[in-house]
Amino acid sequence: MRHMSVTERKSGCDDMEEVAIIGIGCTPVGEPWHKSLRNMAVESTWAAMDDAGVDQVDALILGNMSSGSFNEQESLGSLIADYAGLGNISAFKVEGACGSGGAAFKAGVMAVASGYHDLVCVNGIEKMTDVVGDNATKILANAADREYESIHGISFPGLNAMIMRRYLYDYNVKRDDLAAFPVNSHKNAVHNKNAMFRKEISADSVLNSPMVANPMTLMECAPICDGSASVILTTKERAKEFTDTPVIVKGCSVKVDTIGVHDRKTVTSMNATVTAAQDAYKQSGMQPSDIEAVELHDAFSIMGAIGLEDMGFVERGKAPRFAAEGQIGIGGKLPCCTFGGLKARGHPVGATGIYQIVEMCKNLRGEGVLDIERGLTHNIGGTGSTVSVSILGRD
Amino acid sequence: MRHMSVTERKSGCDDMEEVAIIGIGCTPVGEPWHKSLRNMAVESTWAAMDDAGVDQVDALILGNMSSGSFNEQESLGSLIADYAGLGNISAFKVEGACGSGGAAFKAGVMAVASGYHDLVCVNGIEKMTDVVGDNATKILANAADREYESIHGISFPGLNAMIMRRYLYDYNVKRDDLAAFPVNSHKNAVHNKNAMFRKEISADSVLNSPMVANPMTLMECAPICDGSASVILTTKERAKEFTDTPVIVKGCSVKVDTIGVHDRKTVTSMNATVTAAQDAYKQSGMQPSDIEAVELHDAFSIMGAIGLEDMGFVERGKAPRFAAEGQIGIGGKLPCCTFGGLKARGHPVGATGIYQIVEMCKNLRGEGVLDIERGLTHNIGGTGSTVSVSILGRD
Repeated sequence: MRHMSVTERKSGCDDMEEVAIIGIGCTPVGEPWHKSLRNMAVESTWAAMDDAGVDQVDALILGNMSSGSFNEQESLGSLIADYAGLGNISAFKVEGACGSGGAAFKAGVMAVASGYHDLVCVNGIEKMTDVVGDNATKILANAADREYESIHGISFPGLNAMIMRRYLYDYNVKRDDLAAFPVNSHKNAVHNKNAMFRKEISADSVLNSPMVANPMTLMECAPICDGSASVILTTKERAKEFTDTPVIVKGCSVKVDTIGVHDRKTVTSMNATVTAAQDAYKQSGMQPSDIEAVELHDAFSIMGAIGLEDMGFVERGKAPRFAAEGQIGIGGKLPCCTFGGLKARGHPVGATGIYQIVEMCKNLRGEGVLDIERGLTHNIGGTGSTVSVSILGRD
Repeated sequence: MRHMSVTERKSGCDDMEEVAIIGIGCTPVGEPWHKSLRNMAVESTWAAMDDAGVDQVDALILGNMSSGSFNEQESLGSLIADYAGLGNISAFKVEGACGSGGAAFKAGVMAVASGYHDLVCVNGIEKMTDVVGDNATKILANAADREYESIHGISFPGLNAMIMRRYLYDYNVKRDDLAAFPVNSHKNAVHNKNAMFRKEISADSVLNSPMVANPMTLMECAPICDGSASVILTTKERAKEFTDTPVIVKGCSVKVDTIGVHDRKTVTSMNATVTAAQDAYKQSGMQPSDIEAVELHDAFSIMGAIGLEDMGFVERGKAPRFAAEGQIGIGGKLPCCTFGGLKARGHPVGATGIYQIVEMCKNLRGEGVLDIERGLTHNIGGTGSTVSVSILGRD
């Protein structure tokens, strides 16, 4: 048996073809019952193609978690290529639970870097409202370990509440500080016309909102919603043909961890986030201090806090205070969720990872609320069972 | 708007890193109610890793159609990496309906060719028996166009029966000749210990078996079943470190067509097969006459016939006669389905594309019923809405 050591791997080698984002597009997030799954995917795909100035791509990769269960529709690659009028191109779907968008992004980056495709659209899409049959929370629970978690009735709010309770205990954190994550996301969503909830909220309203799973309240949980976001990728070499403001993929990593939370040494850190971030830092030659803004996976307030710590931005147990002191706000040390994050922009699960890329591109192109050179996106599937971290930068 | 012409694309360029298959493994196909989804995926993954002589890979790509609906389990990448003991590697699932295995194979090839990963396991897995909730045929129908096909009650046997009827009319084919496809597959399954149905059948028994959808009989339809197959990929350059008999990926293409059959100019040819085959021939520098054997997607007898014609092996309307004359048998002009095909080895949908690769590798390594240098695999999703064609060869 040969055991391949990490240093033998090619990840991050200098000889990899660099990939650039030349077009972005997304739909407003919400409950648009007048738009179908295919309508929304086509809308954002065409918007991204328009933005790139191309009327054809040669591959389409869909990030989607559960269209089979939510919409009784599989075969998304052919469906969306068909309805977007893209003809006989290459297309398939990528699934990594709520991290499907981030995983699809990496598949798209590899499709370009491999030389197999030149212009690739990566579309994250999820239509979770007007669901056929089962309710959305039950379908989402399929991302947990069916035999040891979901079949016993545990769902993601429950898993996250248990993690939150342990985190508060381990680090003796002031519980109220965690409310700073949803407060920040709501504040940042006000300017984002594609956000689902565009109004500010107070820490008091977070803490006094209905209890979902003790100690986690409703306003600490991202909503069930629909959305679609798309990006167009090509090689860095070709990017200048299409745009003066290409965004370069400096690092892109997907890592997994045990699917069941009970199988981990700790629940207050996520190995998949730690290793994906390390991999992305290594690929990019950057470290946490080089990053100017983060699109954080704040599906639950506790996930935002642990994410910041796992990626090396804040010491263990210090993220809630860091947030409560305003350091994750626009103008703070590390602006996070600058377009509203999962909590206020919304969390159409398989689309979220691509919304994050789209929003970071706006900041890097000088079209967002920030005008920065290097940003990071952080997309979680399951309870940290699949995590993607991408580092994007100006040319 | 810039319209990218086909010639601008990189597909098939000489500068692409070549990819090799260094390990193969699969489970017996059947109804193993004592084995779970995760058990089966781990079994074939470990078998392929043993075959390659490696005890670690750095990425796992799952080909699977509907574990969410069949098994109430998403997040397959993390689940299988976890239970196979692979740790914090990169992993995600690829879906392309019944063509999920072939699409995952291409994603795996791109992962290696891109330089992002060095040792990649591609695992095709589907567990369709002991299904929770809906029945398998209804879940499979999710691969059709939900709004215009499946919601009206049409399922895949019905769609294929209509195509068969039109084909018989257009080409004035002798209906009985189509029975040669299942007869051939059953004959070839006898020697395959992993096949579901290991007994020969006669053309009469095919034609006299119960009618499923007129004019298509039960014995012209592949079974509902479970199975898992895996391959280990690395660069051609590194392959010799692991094996004396690497199989080289000479061409690998995935193409899509309209998801709905009603939206096509013809139903007796599949554009996705035609274009995927053309792409794979171009990448490999080969033509149909160079191919010595085909693993054909014979989910229904008519699909086998149309596939042979779409890939340029037989003239339009001549495939049933070609088959009835024994030319697709071992010793014929173009041996097909040498391990029993979808009909007799079985068709665990998302796994099928990888079973085909595994079986073709056996023929190319001199471990199969054939001893050949160049073979082709043909995997269909939906009614030809996603098709992958791969051309494999000896070093």
